[in-house]
Amino acid sequence: VSPEVLEEFVAGISPGDAAAAAAADKRQALLTKPAGSLGDLEALGSRLSAMAGRCPPPVPSRPAVLIFAGDHGVLSEGVSPWPAEVTAQMVANFVAGGAAINAIAGVVGADVVAVDVGVATAVPQPRRQAKGRLFSARVRAGTANLVREPAMSPDEASRSVGVGFEAAATLLDEGADLLIPGDMGIGNTTSSAALVAAITGRQPASVTGRGTGISDEVLALKVAAVTAAIDRLASSRQLPAAALTDLPGEVVLAELGGLEMGAIAGCVLAGAKRRVPVLLDGLISLAGGLVAARLAPACVDYMVAGHRSVELGATAALDHLGLHPVLDLRLRLGEGTGACLAVPVLRAAAALLSEMATFDDAGVSSETA
Amino acid sequence: VSPEVLEEFVAGISPGDAAAAAAADKRQALLTKPAGSLGDLEALGSRLSAMAGRCPPPVPSRPAVLIFAGDHGVLSEGVSPWPAEVTAQMVANFVAGGAAINAIAGVVGADVVAVDVGVATAVPQPRRQAKGRLFSARVRAGTANLVREPAMSPDEASRSVGVGFEAAATLLDEGADLLIPGDMGIGNTTSSAALVAAITGRQPASVTGRGTGISDEVLALKVAAVTAAIDRLASSRQLPAAALTDLPGEVVLAELGGLEMGAIAGCVLAGAKRRVPVLLDGLISLAGGLVAARLAPACVDYMVAGHRSVELGATAALDHLGLHPVLDLRLRLGEGTGACLAVPVLRAAAALLSEMATFDDAGVSSETA
Repeated sequence: VSPEVLEEFVAGISPGDAAAAAAADKRQALLTKPAGSLGDLEALGSRLSAMAGRCPPPVPSRPAVLIFAGDHGVLSEGVSPWPAEVTAQMVANFVAGGAAINAIAGVVGADVVAVDVGVATAVPQPRRQAKGRLFSARVRAGTANLVREPAMSPDEASRSVGVGFEAAATLLDEGADLLIPGDMGIGNTTSSAALVAAITGRQPASVTGRGTGISDEVLALKVAAVTAAIDRLASSRQLPAAALTDLPGEVVLAELGGLEMGAIAGCVLAGAKRRVPVLLDGLISLAGGLVAARLAPACVDYMVAGHRSVELGATAALDHLGLHPVLDLRLRLGEGTGACLAVPVLRAAAALLSEMATFDDAGVSSETA
Repeated sequence: VSPEVLEEFVAGISPGDAAAAAAADKRQALLTKPAGSLGDLEALGSRLSAMAGRCPPPVPSRPAVLIFAGDHGVLSEGVSPWPAEVTAQMVANFVAGGAAINAIAGVVGADVVAVDVGVATAVPQPRRQAKGRLFSARVRAGTANLVREPAMSPDEASRSVGVGFEAAATLLDEGADLLIPGDMGIGNTTSSAALVAAITGRQPASVTGRGTGISDEVLALKVAAVTAAIDRLASSRQLPAAALTDLPGEVVLAELGGLEMGAIAGCVLAGAKRRVPVLLDGLISLAGGLVAARLAPACVDYMVAGHRSVELGATAALDHLGLHPVLDLRLRLGEGTGACLAVPVLRAAAALLSEMATFDDAGVSSETA
């Protein structure tokens, strides 16, 4: 790891503005509605105010979905029935506009960019006229098998963070005001489960789920792979598995992660640095969020959990980050789909603070009791 | 009740199209995603297909929020700390664009119409330039106190249903393709709890919640009012309370309901008749839905539950209707707010079926196991 490079990404990230959050809470009490009746939207409005450093916060008008794509050497352990080339094929599908995330991004008016940070095979020519953009920034052609060896070198891990940071910075410079880091990578729920287990200290079986919907047999192989990876890392560091929770984020990323999780972490850091909200998706996005939080704890203040994935490890990561998800639609697709669906809820939380009348302004009587 | 009038509203309502739903399920399996990975969106896509009678279903582009407003004689039982004139003041606020529903409707691109179906006091002149529209169709100036006597006459109940039906028909004629019946009415969670108790057969205390956030003392008065209303109705019909579940919808509406619940029922019937989805909100909207379902059971096929309100009776109504809510944001405001927030999820469910590429079209490999 080149600490100087990572330092550049985390420099200047400061916690959310507590005064702006308090101003939002105070304003909620004046608006024409019973106190507390907007539930989670009120808490979200306060958090958005803290991120922006002002109340009312801006209503996000230009969300950008960044789908970070990478492949995984752990696939050779038999952890998924899908062939690795699907990662590259789906990248072409994102660019052509035929994936689920394209349809959902269209509904909420989000820009879609696919970022090849570590795909193993050639990305095919899209079959339809391109709707999405492709950033080609491949750090390496897929990770090594984390059961046998570190998934990537420290330098590659840092570079994957840099790819996400730079891609996000590019979109922010273009005017994006809400970042949605999504993922694509056959095998990446295995790698993410290992990351979540190491960072949260949970048992592998309790954070390893069925991913794309695998059988009991494949699930057993997957739990075994995550367990073996944790044991390998613990043994190489001469630590008990429970002590892996103390390892630096960049070390866990290099040992157990994926290139897309590194890029997601970089994207989170870029959002936090620019005080822009980052909407996290499911397990892989949250695993990247865990790495980012380990690199710069204050960046949690800029994270919003878009949805509760059915993947077991997602809930472990949400609990660890202290995030309550906006939606629970029993999704398990990735790509940023669940996060993108939460965009209108964020917009509403911000718009309520800027657009609602107060009791005084509207001439509405308050309660008498 | 004038049965001929109600017959006109329910005539021609037919169940959803099972063949279109089956076509949607079949199509889901061909799209570029793991089977079942879109969770609730897949079931919702099938239901929208059944409603429209075709797959893919249309993506709703012109949602209309109809906020039906009425007052409640039961307020004299001390069930709310808010004065009755707030109903009229909030109607003016909806028209001025200063209420929560206006901000949320703006985010999702929905039209807002306030419908005075039974406000007790004069609607003040809006203080800002009008953003919403007002339909004035007052059937009577608030209901009678349902603890002492029927809330309204059978004729008034039918007419309230007619107001909702006609208002919805007007908006559908203007091009609305998704109906969102909301509510405003100080005291209406008491009346709705009584409606829900009578139709579902639940105990009053199990369906009576804190509404705007009332104290333990006021809650006790509210449970007592609902219990007394149920007992009055049972005694007047010489039935045990448990047998009220067999009463016709229009009878329960007249005895225990509110003018806005009647109008909501009419709005649901209009949507079902035109095969347009109806997004239900919280307790009051669901109480109207229960009445509609009693009048025409097939109209449940056109209902989507927008969110799970924290009001106790809302969950009882959802269970009775067999609906799984899209969102759970711990809201308890009404106005159609929770339902309106679910609009983008409905749009996504429909857009996925029309816009996603199949594995074959996109050149993406299927799983091998």
